[in-house]
Amino acid sequence: MSATAAEMRLHTMDVWVRDAAVLTDADELRTILRDAARVGAATVLDDAFHVFPNGAVTGVLLLAQSHLSIHTWPELALANVDLLTYGAADGEQALTLIEGRLGATRATVSCVVRGRG
Amino acid sequence: MSATAAEMRLHTMDVWVRDAAVLTDADELRTILRDAARVGAATVLDDAFHVFPNGAVTGVLLLAQSHLSIHTWPELALANVDLLTYGAADGEQALTLIEGRLGATRATVSCVVRGRG
Repeated sequence: MSATAAEMRLHTMDVWVRDAAVLTDADELRTILRDAARVGAATVLDDAFHVFPNGAVTGVLLLAQSHLSIHTWPELALANVDLLTYGAADGEQALTLIEGRLGATRATVSCVVRGRG
Repeated sequence: MSATAAEMRLHTMDVWVRDAAVLTDADELRTILRDAARVGAATVLDDAFHVFPNGAVTGVLLLAQSHLSIHTWPELALANVDLLTYGAADGEQALTLIEGRLGATRATVSCVVRGRG
């Protein structure tokens, strides 16, 4: 971690999907997040996933550039994705890949600069 | 996970601390985050922590109410904290505990409603 505070960004995306089946497929979600980290030039250190009784999935990748998380709501056909990045990581490319692979019908994306106070 | 989309909130905090030693103490950070989850009425399912060569720590708690993460920058005396909550979890209480236990001199806090598109 050698970036400066000025380079910290939080990317968030709420994404509604065509077919909610992907939102309960933890293995596929892990693959999608790892692929997103790769296209975003982020290095994956570890991950942690949890599947809820209704099939909803919470998953987090620990990155050398911080973290990428997903929380799915199959009953709402909705996923929340958060990516905190530093330095050269490309958050937009990572979120675009996730949006496409989830089969999005609609997405709300934001990017907030962090570490300025 | 039985909340509605209208109850999703992302709480973020960038916090500058008096003594950066706490920012390289992964065990203490894990304890602080778990205590914060408890006062915020969030249930911890799992956690993942990583310590970088310079002592910086990335840690994530997986919560039944989603996730609580910290990324520390000892060289800047700075930590980024992110908490995604649903339903009854009290994000403000959780962040207030973390701010106090880190020995904050300054903090920038925000709360964004999620899942509305």
